[in-house]
Amino acid sequence: LQKSVVKDIGLAEAGEKRIEWARRHMPVLESIKEEFESTKPLKGARVAACLHVTVETANLITALVAGGAQVALTGSNPLSTQDDVAAALAARGLHVYAFRGENEKEYYDCIKKALEISPNVTLDDGADTIAIVHKEYPELADKMFGGCEETTTGVVRLRAMADDGALRYPVIAVNDAETKMMFDNRYGTGQSTAHGIMNATNFLFAGKTVVVVGYGWCGRGFAMRAHGLGANIIVVEIEPRKALEAAMDGYRVMPMSEAAPLGDLFVTLTGDINVIREEHFLLMKDQSILANSGHFNVEIDIPALERLAATKTEAKENVTEYRLKDGRRLYLLAEGRLINLAAAFGHPPEVMDMSFANQALSVKYIVENGRRLDRCVHPVPVEIDRRVAELKLASMGIRVERLTPEQYKYLHSWQMGT
Amino acid sequence: LQKSVVKDIGLAEAGEKRIEWARRHMPVLESIKEEFESTKPLKGARVAACLHVTVETANLITALVAGGAQVALTGSNPLSTQDDVAAALAARGLHVYAFRGENEKEYYDCIKKALEISPNVTLDDGADTIAIVHKEYPELADKMFGGCEETTTGVVRLRAMADDGALRYPVIAVNDAETKMMFDNRYGTGQSTAHGIMNATNFLFAGKTVVVVGYGWCGRGFAMRAHGLGANIIVVEIEPRKALEAAMDGYRVMPMSEAAPLGDLFVTLTGDINVIREEHFLLMKDQSILANSGHFNVEIDIPALERLAATKTEAKENVTEYRLKDGRRLYLLAEGRLINLAAAFGHPPEVMDMSFANQALSVKYIVENGRRLDRCVHPVPVEIDRRVAELKLASMGIRVERLTPEQYKYLHSWQMGT
Amino acid sequence: LQKSVVKDIGLAEAGEKRIEWARRHMPVLESIKEEFESTKPLKGARVAACLHVTVETANLITALVAGGAQVALTGSNPLSTQDDVAAALAARGLHVYAFRGENEKEYYDCIKKALEISPNVTLDDGADTIAIVHKEYPELADKMFGGCEETTTGVVRLRAMADDGALRYPVIAVNDAETKMMFDNRYGTGQSTAHGIMNATNFLFAGKTVVVVGYGWCGRGFAMRAHGLGANIIVVEIEPRKALEAAMDGYRVMPMSEAAPLGDLFVTLTGDINVIREEHFLLMKDQSILANSGHFNVEIDIPALERLAATKTEAKENVTEYRLKDGRRLYLLAEGRLINLAAAFGHPPEVMDMSFANQALSVKYIVENGRRLDRCVHPVPVEIDRRVAELKLASMGIRVERLTPEQYKYLHSWQMGT
Amino acid sequence: LQKSVVKDIGLAEAGEKRIEWARRHMPVLESIKEEFESTKPLKGARVAACLHVTVETANLITALVAGGAQVALTGSNPLSTQDDVAAALAARGLHVYAFRGENEKEYYDCIKKALEISPNVTLDDGADTIAIVHKEYPELADKMFGGCEETTTGVVRLRAMADDGALRYPVIAVNDAETKMMFDNRYGTGQSTAHGIMNATNFLFAGKTVVVVGYGWCGRGFAMRAHGLGANIIVVEIEPRKALEAAMDGYRVMPMSEAAPLGDLFVTLTGDINVIREEHFLLMKDQSILANSGHFNVEIDIPALERLAATKTEAKENVTEYRLKDGRRLYLLAEGRLINLAAAFGHPPEVMDMSFANQALSVKYIVENGRRLDRCVHPVPVEIDRRVAELKLASMGIRVERLTPEQYKYLHSWQMGT
Repeated sequence: LQKSVVKDIGLAEAGEKRIEWARRHMPVLESIKEEFESTKPLKGARVAACLHVTVETANLITALVAGGAQVALTGSNPLSTQDDVAAALAARGLHVYAFRGENEKEYYDCIKKALEISPNVTLDDGADTIAIVHKEYPELADKMFGGCEETTTGVVRLRAMADDGALRYPVIAVNDAETKMMFDNRYGTGQSTAHGIMNATNFLFAGKTVVVVGYGWCGRGFAMRAHGLGANIIVVEIEPRKALEAAMDGYRVMPMSEAAPLGDLFVTLTGDINVIREEHFLLMKDQSILANSGHFNVEIDIPALERLAATKTEAKENVTEYRLKDGRRLYLLAEGRLINLAAAFGHPPEVMDMSFANQALSVKYIVENGRRLDRCVHPVPVEIDRRVAELKLASMGIRVERLTPEQYKYLHSWQMGT
Repeated sequence: LQKSVVKDIGLAEAGEKRIEWARRHMPVLESIKEEFESTKPLKGARVAACLHVTVETANLITALVAGGAQVALTGSNPLSTQDDVAAALAARGLHVYAFRGENEKEYYDCIKKALEISPNVTLDDGADTIAIVHKEYPELADKMFGGCEETTTGVVRLRAMADDGALRYPVIAVNDAETKMMFDNRYGTGQSTAHGIMNATNFLFAGKTVVVVGYGWCGRGFAMRAHGLGANIIVVEIEPRKALEAAMDGYRVMPMSEAAPLGDLFVTLTGDINVIREEHFLLMKDQSILANSGHFNVEIDIPALERLAATKTEAKENVTEYRLKDGRRLYLLAEGRLINLAAAFGHPPEVMDMSFANQALSVKYIVENGRRLDRCVHPVPVEIDRRVAELKLASMGIRVERLTPEQYKYLHSWQMGT
Repeated sequence: LQKSVVKDIGLAEAGEKRIEWARRHMPVLESIKEEFESTKPLKGARVAACLHVTVETANLITALVAGGAQVALTGSNPLSTQDDVAAALAARGLHVYAFRGENEKEYYDCIKKALEISPNVTLDDGADTIAIVHKEYPELADKMFGGCEETTTGVVRLRAMADDGALRYPVIAVNDAETKMMFDNRYGTGQSTAHGIMNATNFLFAGKTVVVVGYGWCGRGFAMRAHGLGANIIVVEIEPRKALEAAMDGYRVMPMSEAAPLGDLFVTLTGDINVIREEHFLLMKDQSILANSGHFNVEIDIPALERLAATKTEAKENVTEYRLKDGRRLYLLAEGRLINLAAAFGHPPEVMDMSFANQALSVKYIVENGRRLDRCVHPVPVEIDRRVAELKLASMGIRVERLTPEQYKYLHSWQMGT
Repeated sequence: LQKSVVKDIGLAEAGEKRIEWARRHMPVLESIKEEFESTKPLKGARVAACLHVTVETANLITALVAGGAQVALTGSNPLSTQDDVAAALAARGLHVYAFRGENEKEYYDCIKKALEISPNVTLDDGADTIAIVHKEYPELADKMFGGCEETTTGVVRLRAMADDGALRYPVIAVNDAETKMMFDNRYGTGQSTAHGIMNATNFLFAGKTVVVVGYGWCGRGFAMRAHGLGANIIVVEIEPRKALEAAMDGYRVMPMSEAAPLGDLFVTLTGDINVIREEHFLLMKDQSILANSGHFNVEIDIPALERLAATKTEAKENVTEYRLKDGRRLYLLAEGRLINLAAAFGHPPEVMDMSFANQALSVKYIVENGRRLDRCVHPVPVEIDRRVAELKLASMGIRVERLTPEQYKYLHSWQMGT
């Protein structure tokens, strides 16, 4: 068993420095780690974790190890691994198989290496490990306590598996915890997507028309931030209630075919495929910018762009220029991969603190209860969700109001009226 | 059977004019009314509706009558009835029992009059009719198709009844439809609460500290609007996840005891009792303003205010000045009743359009399916919810994006990965 | 000399109550009034004041009288007089010539009555008094200490007079004080224009397209508030730098001919004539709403609307429906007069506090210095402007940072560098 | 004469690529460059330019050279030079004396090298060249056509010189052009300061308390963006009118001594010295972050921080940790130098496009008119300012409204009234 595959173990010290910086901004996870250290609730757990290998993830892994788990870590996106972080964890003696710039084969080889520890828990960010276990390692599936899934994309995929009767072990939809979804997907994706775009392009948001494709929590978050930076927002959405909400929030709402000629910047956050495609590229203005902040690099139809382009050049780091036959230039950022991870640092540690606190407590829940759970997608228990919020508020120095006994009674009675 | 009890039938013409104005801004309800007119789905329904008697409600009643129902209407709050509207409906020959300024006995007498039509459907805005039916007219309860409830407050009350096993007929929680809750409670309450406060006080929001008590959809909506008008917002909330959301939205969050000395204006939107009380009044600045936008006038502890006051005077219409013994003056708006209805026109017709479209379609659903439903609180069927959104978008001239077959397939498959 | 012309002296008590309410929210003017009471700096001054007769104006007049001035008050707009306020002042024995609904002759007759006190100071809100004095009472002009002008519109007019060499006495452009222009024109007009529109129509701003015509301080203020209430904003502007600022603020910017078919609501705040006219009416959507918040009712070309209309009816109070020959309905609010005064209460007292503190101190300045000033438009002395800000901050309980001696020196030196 | 001093000429190609990227986003400057190329208005001009050596500056230099000028370029801040850009310009054969990380002596040596071309025009960003010319090269001063100054800080310094009678040649305050100050200082500094902080710390703005020191255009801009990213803002300001504006904008306003214990992040944008100092450091929370976005690194009292610290370590790139004796850690970003240039790319090209269009046209103006101008600080001629706005709007595809002849006449007449 090869202990680790990383780009350059010499980056370990730089990585540790950055991990420490993140640790200081993840007080909730830190308090859970301290509890884990004394109670060792994860003893006997073998965790295959396929996550973006970032400073925040390093702190989750640290907490799991503190709780007694054995962990093998792989990257959940070929472009998102921070090599210094991978090096730091490898230098600690952990199983790490991840480097920035993996090709597709290397990506899956890394996951398979992680499976050599015979995991009984899987952690996913896009459901790739669980999919491979089901397709190629069914014998592992039957011994699993369960899994955790971090993303909207992955949860959609797992629900489809469960609906097909194909899911062979229980999974906690960590993504759907309120303290995950509404914070990480909204505030985290919102800011970090804008950050990645600034890094790649030094784009001034003020005065620009930004087309936000998808108005789920991620799309809402990015629209809110792009608007807060001075852009004029257009939302493209398929669900009528979300579309209506976008309109009520003061944004223009229209189909992509109408938005295409209007945007200066297009950002996809849908979890769906080919939401910007040939028919749309043909309508865009010269120098339009295209970025994706959804999980997979399938939201922008890159093969179509390749077909349409007369020339393709690297305009600058993370910016590929596609010059169409009529001379118009479209700029694709980070090859259509998650812009916040490819061109910035992913979510700030403050939001990953909550997401990973949910992860850590969900792993504990699975280890303790997984054998008794149905083979479907389960929500994060509300006690965990609420506890994460309470710990976070405490770390921010915020106290909430408390119910009086009279109020408690009032809320649970139906006899009193006007 | 006394056909109607209204303040002044002579106001009917003015009422009709305003009803017509609202009608023009309720295109979804209008299209449902047209459908009802030709299909008469409510034939045989006898509806006791206890709602704020406003121009928007008049259009709901018109739609129900167009669908074949017999309707008896009462007000759902002693201060919210628009007397010209009540007059207009009475002049059309409908059963209307409502006038502005009812005392408590008159309020309940009106409801009881409405029950004389032997209703088989109840519509409530705060669950008062259903509570009376259960407490005093159990024989009516057993013949009901079902009920609809419009407010958060009422739904909380009905869930408590159902949990006690006390609910004797099924109820649709119209409040919880996304196209109701997220729009009416947020955008409607948000704007109209600010409007009522402006009307009562001509208060400049810019530069003021506004304490928003409760961060549910109503509280979020009002916080958003008060902030949009230039105020600095403090949120008081008991649920940790909502408190955390408020903090992430950029607001200060603290217990009421800390907020009390900081606010210029306090607005309650909790559905709970005595959220501002003696201990808080004692901490407030001179000339603090107190308003309620929750359903019942119990959120501010008015009896405590009466006890504390050395003098009580009407500073101006809708503003009662309580001068405390130390000379500080606290201003209570509209006797603590729903400020948006007492001092403004309630929700704008555009949002009531969606709420009442849900009501109208839910009444149809109850008439058609009520006998088969369990005796508990049911959600609005998602098809109704989505249809309301689609009709609304169409009325606004907004088209949404459509899924391609490829996209539909992708979203329902789990085989494709990174 | 007829002492007063008001609608109904019986309204005096109600007026006093409202004046008192405003007084409590005008702490800066109140502290100036107290100073005036003891120092009597306006002794010998005879002031002809042509202002919107509102509760705030009543407090200005009170302060001037406290300072020793004799005052005659007229309304500065035929629709803006609050009759209870006029009654209250008349009942105190003041010269008041104002009632809501004056026709054009009555309007000018009132001004002429006020001139019977042989004023040596004029206060204007739109420059009407000063224009009449110049045109019809030149003998008065030569004895004047000077005048004050409250509005952008009036200042533009007076600068044109001065450029023509026609101005016969010095005028202070109170409008241009920072503590007037940036607060009253922006925060005051912003909120109160939205308030007037809500009162006239119960219009929901969220989800609507609002066309703001003019992006000066008033236009900026209303755009900010309409946006803060959830509307999507389009700005129409002629000055390229302001147009660019609007674009950078995230709004769409375009000529009126492009905006006309897009808006749900059009609001003019330009100080110019016929900014919405026949060519634009012909392009508008059915049920478009038209309102003016500029000083004069000439910004919307009402004669053109009258010509185009097949029918004209009062849809409700303050809403005139013009039905065009093709069936489209355009709604004109408050006959195109200042919507915030015609349908709401004008600026909240908190901003008028600053504007009128500038007025009161400028009157004192004129009485003391007018004879020595050139016959042109003068800025408010910066000491007055800054003093108003300091008094206001103190009244809000806000302390500002103070320069250290080292910092003062640094800011006045040029020797120190990188 | 040494032709250039740069870090690594091998970076030239990378620099050119980035310069080209910026060029595409500076259409106004580009159109001026094209005009300059054909008319050569700068023939005979020798320009010493002391500016942040960025991709945008490279395009300004290109335009000046296209106009016929000889240019020598130095950096205006020891940490702001982009070495690849310096290399690219050097490789073109220009005089460039600039590298990132100059010490104080090297910084001034570079400026002196630039003076070897005997300039007759100086361009400054902080007034360092002009100060040295006055102090050490008076013979150069007398032959100057004039100078241009880009920053608030520099303009303040030059006005102090002029007030002392010390200024020996005319200077255009390019900073004060509306199309510079309101856009670059507000929208540019606003976004890029947030960007630099994100890059240095991956700080999540949502939920944080951010103390903005200074509420001039830069401070307003950053407050707006930090607020737009979800932070709760506190403003510290000395000028009462600006402080009042901040309060009316919905922010808390207080002296630094009150803000110190509340902030998570402190950003200085004042142009003043020691605005955060020992007395404030002693009050701050553990892990507070300190950044400067004013021109010089004197706004935070770093010597005091050094004195107070028990240890000083590099927490990560651009983050210095000062651990106080009681264990609290304060993080200083980028050694207190301009955070947007030290940790991000400075202003986006879209705003520098306007600033540098003003620069280019002001250089032309100086060359043509400098000999006739008084030796003081002059505003940018309003025709230049307006032309820049018009060119920018055109490049954004935005058309503005045009006055009709009737409107033009109305605005210049004073005879028409109510």
